[in-house]
Formats: sequence, structure tokens, C-alpha cells
Amino acid sequence: MMLQRPSADSSGPGFTPLVVVELASDTKEEAIAWLLSRIRDQQHNGGAELLVEQLGPGVEGQEKENPNMFVVGASWQRLLSGAEDVGLFKEFSDGSMRGFTCANKHNFKDFKGDGDDFLSMAECQYIIKHELDTLRAKDETHVPGYTQVKLYPGKSIIRRLQSKGILIQFFPLHEKEELKRLSFSWYKKMKLSFQPLDDIRHYYGEGQALYFGFLEYFTIALVPMALIGVPYYLFDWEDYDKYVVFAVFNLIWCTVILELWKRCSASLAYSWGTLSRKKAFEEPRPGFHGVLGFNPVTGREEPLYPNAKRQLRIYLVSLPFVLLCLYLSLYVMMIYFQMEGWALSVYDEEPTFWTGILLFIPSIIYAVVIEIMNLIYRYAAEFLTEWENHRLESSYQNHLVLKVLVFNFFNCFASLFYIAFVMQDMVLLRQSLATLLITSQILNQFMEAFLPYWLQRRRNKKMIHKVRKRRTLEDKELPLAEQVRLEAEMSTYLGTFDDYLELFLLFGYVSLFSCVYPLAAVLVVLNNVTEVYSDAFKMCHVFKRPFSDPAANIGVWQLAFEAMSVIAVVTNFALIGMSPQVKAYFPESETQLILWTVAIEHGLLAFKFILTFLIPDVPKHIQIKLAHLEFESLEALKKKRLVASWLSDHQRGCELQC
Amino acid sequence: MMLQRPSADSSGPGFTPLVVVELASDTKEEAIAWLLSRIRDQQHNGGAELLVEQLGPGVEGQEKENPNMFVVGASWQRLLSGAEDVGLFKEFSDGSMRGFTCANKHNFKDFKGDGDDFLSMAECQYIIKHELDTLRAKDETHVPGYTQVKLYPGKSIIRRLQSKGILIQFFPLHEKEELKRLSFSWYKKMKLSFQPLDDIRHYYGEGQALYFGFLEYFTIALVPMALIGVPYYLFDWEDYDKYVVFAVFNLIWCTVILELWKRCSASLAYSWGTLSRKKAFEEPRPGFHGVLGFNPVTGREEPLYPNAKRQLRIYLVSLPFVLLCLYLSLYVMMIYFQMEGWALSVYDEEPTFWTGILLFIPSIIYAVVIEIMNLIYRYAAEFLTEWENHRLESSYQNHLVLKVLVFNFFNCFASLFYIAFVMQDMVLLRQSLATLLITSQILNQFMEAFLPYWLQRRRNKKMIHKVRKRRTLEDKELPLAEQVRLEAEMSTYLGTFDDYLELFLLFGYVSLFSCVYPLAAVLVVLNNVTEVYSDAFKMCHVFKRPFSDPAANIGVWQLAFEAMSVIAVVTNFALIGMSPQVKAYFPESETQLILWTVAIEHGLLAFKFILTFLIPDVPKHIQIKLAHLEFESLEALKKKRLVASWLSDHQRGCELQC
Repeated sequence: MMLQRPSADSSGPGFTPLVVVELASDTKEEAIAWLLSRIRDQQHNGGAELLVEQLGPGVEGQEKENPNMFVVGASWQRLLSGAEDVGLFKEFSDGSMRGFTCANKHNFKDFKGDGDDFLSMAECQYIIKHELDTLRAKDETHVPGYTQVKLYPGKSIIRRLQSKGILIQFFPLHEKEELKRLSFSWYKKMKLSFQPLDDIRHYYGEGQALYFGFLEYFTIALVPMALIGVPYYLFDWEDYDKYVVFAVFNLIWCTVILELWKRCSASLAYSWGTLSRKKAFEEPRPGFHGVLGFNPVTGREEPLYPNAKRQLRIYLVSLPFVLLCLYLSLYVMMIYFQMEGWALSVYDEEPTFWTGILLFIPSIIYAVVIEIMNLIYRYAAEFLTEWENHRLESSYQNHLVLKVLVFNFFNCFASLFYIAFVMQDMVLLRQSLATLLITSQILNQFMEAFLPYWLQRRRNKKMIHKVRKRRTLEDKELPLAEQVRLEAEMSTYLGTFDDYLELFLLFGYVSLFSCVYPLAAVLVVLNNVTEVYSDAFKMCHVFKRPFSDPAANIGVWQLAFEAMSVIAVVTNFALIGMSPQVKAYFPESETQLILWTVAIEHGLLAFKFILTFLIPDVPKHIQIKLAHLEFESLEALKKKRLVASWLSDHQRGCELQC
Repeated sequence: MMLQRPSADSSGPGFTPLVVVELASDTKEEAIAWLLSRIRDQQHNGGAELLVEQLGPGVEGQEKENPNMFVVGASWQRLLSGAEDVGLFKEFSDGSMRGFTCANKHNFKDFKGDGDDFLSMAECQYIIKHELDTLRAKDETHVPGYTQVKLYPGKSIIRRLQSKGILIQFFPLHEKEELKRLSFSWYKKMKLSFQPLDDIRHYYGEGQALYFGFLEYFTIALVPMALIGVPYYLFDWEDYDKYVVFAVFNLIWCTVILELWKRCSASLAYSWGTLSRKKAFEEPRPGFHGVLGFNPVTGREEPLYPNAKRQLRIYLVSLPFVLLCLYLSLYVMMIYFQMEGWALSVYDEEPTFWTGILLFIPSIIYAVVIEIMNLIYRYAAEFLTEWENHRLESSYQNHLVLKVLVFNFFNCFASLFYIAFVMQDMVLLRQSLATLLITSQILNQFMEAFLPYWLQRRRNKKMIHKVRKRRTLEDKELPLAEQVRLEAEMSTYLGTFDDYLELFLLFGYVSLFSCVYPLAAVLVVLNNVTEVYSDAFKMCHVFKRPFSDPAANIGVWQLAFEAMSVIAVVTNFALIGMSPQVKAYFPESETQLILWTVAIEHGLLAFKFILTFLIPDVPKHIQIKLAHLEFESLEALKKKRLVASWLSDHQRGCELQC
């Protein structure tokens, strides 16, 4: 990233704008002045030592526009010391990844002086976010001009402003040129190829890149299944009994690919320098509230909320609510089965083409209802988790993920389990699976990519049109002020949650029931390929640029996928035990059959856990590199100690001589 | 520990002897001289900077005695710097546990100058062991006097001498006074009380103390089971159907106590300062051999052994051998059942008192055979694991534990599983369990405590007798030279392996099958109480003092016990499913019964895993303390950086002015 590039646009600031801070349009002047001075103040005075300027007015002038938009940047020295603060890992001259320190900066591989391509723009923006986040109140008791917005020493100013609605948003800016290059190599060229993960990481950070890496890995892992599935589907269509082989394949497949992904993810995270990076201390979430007290860890004054009270809210309100929702979902399922029965009876009475189509209608309606219920539940879950008042963002996320996962799993798969194990109707199972899968894919693609794209396109056109009215633009490029305002109006990307959730459900469809409907894998592969394109497109053109998130793995989702794979083993075994093929081996005694199935299943589950232990999560060569770094730092420490003891001996000698 | 105490014994060295090093009696003079000079040499010359002296001759003079016995000690400064090297954690003035550093020594709680009780004798001995272990060859190519004993720069001298048989042993010395105090408070007073864990840790180190802590915890955890078991046994003796309640209790019990132990162990380890202590880099085992190459982690020259070759040895030799042993064990079991059948037929023909006793004979013989097979297998497993040539002691231990556990589990429990699930004979199961449990307990106590005690007593008496012949001793206290030689001849304590293994098997008997024989818990409690006494006694009077081992938990055994608890859940569920009580609920369909049992069992296993996640392994208040320390060190780092950047700014300013 070139930072000292001359600003072509005369209305822009004297530095490269990295992050935009938007305050409410009615913010009092003294609060703004105070905030700016705190951001600009030197670090040893407790400031953030960043560069900040108010954005000039757009082409429309003062009318309707929010004047309180600020662009934030930083000097090179500041960014480097910030990189040390956030514990950034960079490639060292010997090829290993090490924590960046200013004292050592010349030993890092790509460091060629100041003002070069050493830090990517995403990294710079992450550093600025971190510095803004950790800008703390000193002895202010409240925000100037707002006596009701209380502060206490050590409180993050930005988070308080955010929770009180004074700070509307702060977001990093897109970089038009790089985005164009990225989108070309990512989804604009027509031939099928691997995604440019390093470029994605360079532009969006590690969290995003890991998601796209996982999406790609998952798709590739599905290809053998899809390849086996097609001939299987074509030649065995009416032979429902032959699914045993496929079920066995399924349960090995879902265990192995998750183990391999861990290694794959560790390799990626190592090469991106996030694998051995230590987590910083988490700040309380912006929405967290409580009575002022002393944090036992930091010793600072901050709001505390009794854990017992939170537990009560979780177990007395959230848990019953979730159970109620599960019951509702079950109720809807039962209505679906009634509709199904009704449609079947109509078809049986009068089997025409139209009543044949009618057979599919209940499934389609049910699929749509499932999506709608998931959506509504999602909002309820967010509200409840917010109300549980978790102190840390990570704990909030875990509780939210747990709530949403349980419900979505139940909502999507309950009917399939019911058909498979209570009704034991494999034909209906196949048909339901197909309808559910196809309908939810179509709905998802529409909601996720097309709708936001269409909205954004309208906004873009309006803005360009407005600008055209005043100036004549040859190259269609907007001036900074307009560009910032345009981006500020883009939708906010809410993180990878929904994307992972979708993959999780797809993984469920494939690993649980694909043995009875081998085309499922093919459908999911197709979906994933379009998903790559639509996700890439929406990241580049629909959403605000998100702050990068230095993730080392896919976090709680790894656990969720592994739980699903355990359920898949059990389900597949149950399907195997129910297959006529296997039943034929135990003609006289059903008890024998079940006992054998259960015994083998237990053995296999045990084997799966042993396998999880045996396959190391981090590939050998990376383990060696990490151990080497640790060894070096230990040796350095030992040397330092020896020198220190020698020095103190020496000193003592000198003292004796004097 | 008082170090500067005047040596009352004129024949002893001028310092407190801590560790004894015994070289082979025919060691060449130049090798001895070289070793002593390397031990005495200063640290910046690559020496260990320890004090070492040859032990004077015993009362018997030169005859038969090994003259090459050396006692090693150290100055106070050396011990303190060694404490820093090994990363010892001590209580800080604010009550938290922190890594000791010499620079900070006055801020530690018990530090009152030099030569006080700051370091326990066990800690001093551990430090000296560490310093001796890490005494490395410089440019020597071989040990002087032994051209065939090769050295290379960086090779641990002690380990090479040990593997070549020049160094026979090195061990820490007992401290008579403290031992007397400890043994009094531990097992000599008659009233039942908790063990003095802190004193045990003080004398033997954390590894030992954790074992005794676990033994105590396990015993206390068994008490409720024993209390329920007694009336159950007394009043329901002939009613085999009523074990369902007990089985349910069992499966909850074995899950909960293991989770709670983790927290308990974390509390102990925190208060002893081993919880957050970092593991040092492990040296290769003394017996490890290979072709010289470069270690990719340290970059040093050392023997390397290809991993593929080791894997081949494991999978092509060790694994088939273990399977063969399992088969043999199965074969022996079948012989036992034949004997059992024969005894039963004799009793049926002629039911007298003597043939009634004959009924128990096969079980007793089988129990003895099991113990013998376990013993033989143990040696074979050690030989094989040694032959697999593991580089690290920890990896050696893991492979050994795995081999021994699988065989012992199979050997001890196979017959019980066979009786329970194939023969479905609850009366025989009860009888076998009782016989196995009681016989193995008697054998164990005999082999473990009585035999070594008797041998040691003979040795002691002989030595005192010899000394008496020459001198007249009023207080029976031996002079140092004799004391050292006496201790050198004591058996070597081989670690907690066998003790944990015994507990593991007892845990198995209780958690797997105690529902059909409720007295098992009572028997195990009784056994554990005597075990405390016999173990304590053998630690104090039978074995050489072991080097302390700064363990933070019970390591691989936690895993082993958890695996056993999973097996226990499955077994108990199977027993429940087989009980007539439960069968009565499903009078018409056995299939229904099995399906329900399996479904509930799966749910319970899932719940067990969720519980393992939900209960934090470290109690909250310790988590907070650890987080507080980490926070402080981060803050200190940040401050240091700020000062550094301010200084460099300042310097730049000065340069500009010049």
C-alpha cells in the first residue's frame, strides 16, 4: 500500500484516509472537538496519536447530508508501532513468521524502509480500529456536552459513544484499484480455478479468507462423493436397498475431511501469521451494562454484572423460549405431514399431471416456511442473547451460535429424521430431501446476493446521477467525499455467521441423508460453486468493507461441524441397520441385527475419537517451525540472563576495587 | 532448608550434600577428573558451577565398596539462579504465584536473605538434577579415557555416561529429620485424617503429592457409593433385579467425580506453582540412538531416527505382539471357564463343604494368573517400547501406558464382560468380581509393600550391624558415608505408573460392575485406606528418594480414567437394558427395549460430553488470578515499549541538537 501518494483530489485530506468515523448529525460541537483532540493527542498523554480530518461536503452541499463524517489515517511510524501493539506476525528474513517489533523491523522480509508495501491496507485499518478501540477515558467523568453519557478512567471512549448512539458507525474504506484487481482474479474470469486466497486475505483479512478457504475445501471434498453419486443415481434409481455402501462411505468421509481441514486451516493460518498469535485481552462489548465495580483481572473500575443473574436469564428465559420454539417447529412439521397426506389422497383419487405437481407443493411450502421460521428465530435469538448481557463479544457469539444452531438443525432436519426413522419411508425421504435442498438453495441465493445487489445498484446509480448533474465525469470515478458517503450507505456485512450456517446445513444434508439421495452431493457442489461467485460478488460490491479479523481457525464452527459428523455416523448406522440388504443377513432375529449394529457403531465412534487424537491438528513441518521459534526465544532469554549475571558479577568486582 | 549448617560429621564435605552420583567402580581416573572439573567449572565456561566431593570410605574401608561415589551440592547464589533456569514458581508478596527471578527475589514472600528456607530440599535437588542434565559437551569428541564413548557439541554429558553404563545412578539424599516428621504426620499417628499433601509435596515434589491427592480424592468419592452399597448389599442380597438404581447412580458418579477432580487438581497445582509453569524443552532419552544429523528445532547436531522406521516397528511388530497377547489372554480365560464348569459339576455331584470351597478355586487361580500375566506383559511392553526407540521420555511413556492399559484392561475385565453379556449370569458375575477384587488386592499389597519392606529391613540391619562392629553408636544414627551407601543400595522408585495403574483397575471394577456387587465400593475404600499407609511407608522407608517432578496434573491418566468412564456408561446401560426390571416394561417386544436403551444411552453420552465442556477445568477464582498475571505482564510490556519509544524520540532529539 502506498501511503505517501500525493492526494490527487484537492478536497481530500493530506494523508491516505483509512477509516471513516460517522457521528450523529446533531452531535454537540464540544464533544466533537474533545474526541478529535483525544484521537490526535500523543500516546504518552493517553491519546491515540492518529491523523483525523473532517470530510468536505459532497456535491449536494449541506442539504440533507450528515456533516459529521471524519476520515482517520496515521503516519508510518504510528502504524508500525501499532502493528507491534496488536501483535502482528510478519514473515522474517529467514522465512519464519514472527511477531513484528519496531526494534527488529529491518530483519523482516518485505520491510524496505518506511512507506512501502510492508503493511497491507487491511492491516493498517485493523491497527487503526484497535487504536481507536483502546482509546480510553482518563479523568473525564462524562463526554463533554453530554452529562448523561458517563465515563470512568479506562473506559473505551469509542465503545461508550457507540453504545449511546453518538457514534453511528466506523468502517474501513474500500480501495477501488485493488478491489478491481481482486474481483477480476476472483470471480470475473470465466475459467474455473482456485480462489486467490492470499489476495482475499490481503484485502479482507484472515477471517474472510478462512471462510472462502473452507468453502473451497468443502466443495473439493464433495467432488468424489458427487462423482460416485451420479452413476449411483442413474443406475440404481429404483433400488432403494443399495445404499449401504454409500452410507459407509459417508461416515468415513465426514470424519476424515474435518480432520484434514484442521491441518489445512493450520497451514493457512501459519502462512498468514495468525496461528501462534496471542489473543489480546478482550474489552467488554459495547452493549454490556452493569453496576460500576472493580474488575478482578485488570483491577480497573468497570461495570460488573453478576454471573448468577445472567445464568438465571439463560436458564429461566432463554432455555424455555428455545424449547418452545422447538415445539412450534415440531407442530409446523406435523401440519406439513397432514398436507402431504392430503395431497397424496388427492393424487390417488385423480392421478393427472396437475395433481402430480400438487404432490410437490407441500414440501415446497414447508421449505419456504422453514426459511421464514429460521429468519424470525434468528432475530429472537439475537435479541435474547443481547438481553443476557454477556460481557465479552466471544461469549455473546458462542451463546448466539448455540441457540441458532440447535434450532436450525431441528427445524431443517426434524422432518427428515421423522420420515426416515418413524415413517421409514425411503421414497418420501428422497423426495423431501430433494425439495428441501433445492428450495432452500434458491431462496438463499436470492436473499443473500440478488436482493442486496439490486438495492445497492439502485443506490449507486442515484449517486452517480446526482454527481453527473453538477460535474462532468469522464471516468465515472467519484471524488473522495462522494465515495465515502456512498460507502457509508452500503449495507454492513454482519460477519461470516450466516455463511457458515448455510454451509453447516448443507453439510448436514449431505452427511446425514445423502446415501438415500446420491444427487444431494452434486446439488451441493453446484450450490457451492455459485456460492463462491455470489459471496465474492457481494463482498466486493454490495457491502461496506469489513474490518479484517485475525482468525487462526474457523472457531466454534469446527466444533459444530464435528458434532454434526458424530450425528452423521449414528444416523448412517441407523440407516444401514434398517436397510433390507443388512436385514437379510439376520433373517430370524431382529434383536441380533440391532445388537450387532449398535456394537459396530460404538466401535466406530470410539475409532473416530481415537483418530481425532492420532491425526495431529497441525502438520509436522509447521510444528517444527513453531518449536524452533520457541526454542530460539528460550535460548535468547537464557543468554540474556547469563549476560546479566556476568554483568552483575563484573559490577560487584568493580565495586570491590573502588 | 538450612544449607550453611556446620557439618557435624568431620568425614563429610564442606557443604550440604544434596545429590549422590555413583560412577562404575572401574571408571578411569582421567574420566573422573574431567567430569568433576566440568561440574565445578563456571557457567560462562560451559560448566555447571556446582560443588562436588568424593565420598570418604565407609567403615568397612576399601574392601568391596565402590570408591567412586560423589556428593553434589551448590552455593546459595547458584541454587537461586538455577531456580530461575528451571522456571520455578514461588509465592509472591501479593499472594499470587509467579516465576522466580533473581532480579526480583526480594519481592517473593518467603525470601528473607540468603540461606533461608526459601527453597525446599526437594527443589534444590531438582535444580541440581536439571543442571547436571543440561551440562553439555563443548568440543570434546569423546569422554577422556574412553574413545568409544562419543560426544558431540551440545550432547548432555550425564545422559551419555548413563547410557554407556559409566554413570550407574544419581539420586537425591533423604533428610532424616524431615522424613521422621513427615512419616509421623502421614501414617504413624493412629487417627484417620487427611494426608499432609503440602508436606508430601515439600519432600517429594508435585508428581508424588498429586498421586496421593488423587488417591485420597478417589477414596472420598467412593464413600457415598460404599454407604449406599452396604444396606443395599445387606437387604437385597438375593434380589438381582434391583440393580438399575445403582447402575444409574454409577454412571452419573463416574462422570461427575472425574470432572471435579480436574478442578481439584488445578487448585492444588496452582497453589504449588506448577499450573502455569511452562514445560522446558525435552532432551532426548538416555537410551535414544540414531545417526548424527541436525535437529530441525534446535539446529544442533544430535542423533536422529527416522519416524517412518519407528512407525514400522510400532505397526508391524508391537501392534501384532499386543494383539497376540490379547488372544493369549482370551485363551486363558476360556481355560478358566472350563475349570469353572468342571468345579461346578463336581459340586453338583457331591455338594459338601469342601466341594463348596472348590467352587472358588478356579476364580482364585485365574486371579493369580491374571496378575502374573500382567507382570510378564509389563516387562515385554517395556522392552518393546524401548526398542521402538522414542526420542522423548514423554512419547516413550505414552506408548508404554497405552500398551499396558489396553492389555491390563482386557486381561482383568474380559472375563467379567463375557460373564455379564454372553453368559448373562449375574450370580457368577458377582462371585467372579468378588474373588478377582479380593485376590488381586491381597497380592498387590504383598508385592508392593511387604516384600520390599522385608528386603530393605534385612539390608538395614546388616549395615547397622556392620557399623556397630567397628564403632559404638549411641543414637543408632549412621555417619554420612554409611548413610549414602545404604541409600544407594535401596530399591529405586520407578515412578507412579504402577500405583496409577492399580487405581485405574480398581476404578474399573467399581464403575463397570459394582451395581451387581455393591460391596465392591466398600472393598475398594478399605483397599485405598491401607494403600495410603503402605504407599506412604514404602516411599519413606523402602525406596531411594525420587527426584521431584513438577507435574501440573495427573497427565495421561486423566485421559485413561475418562475413557474408562465412557466405557462405564455404555456397560451400565447394557446392564440396565438386560435387567428384568426394565424388561418388564416392554413385555411384548425386545426390539423396542433395545432401541429405547440405545437411544437413551446415546443421549446420555452426548450429555456427558456437553457436561465435560460446560464444567470449566480450572476454578473461576484461579482463572481470574492467572488472567490477572497475564494482564499485568502485558501491561508491563506495553509500558516498556512506550518508554523505549519515548527514549528513542528523545535520543533523536538530542542527535538533532548536536
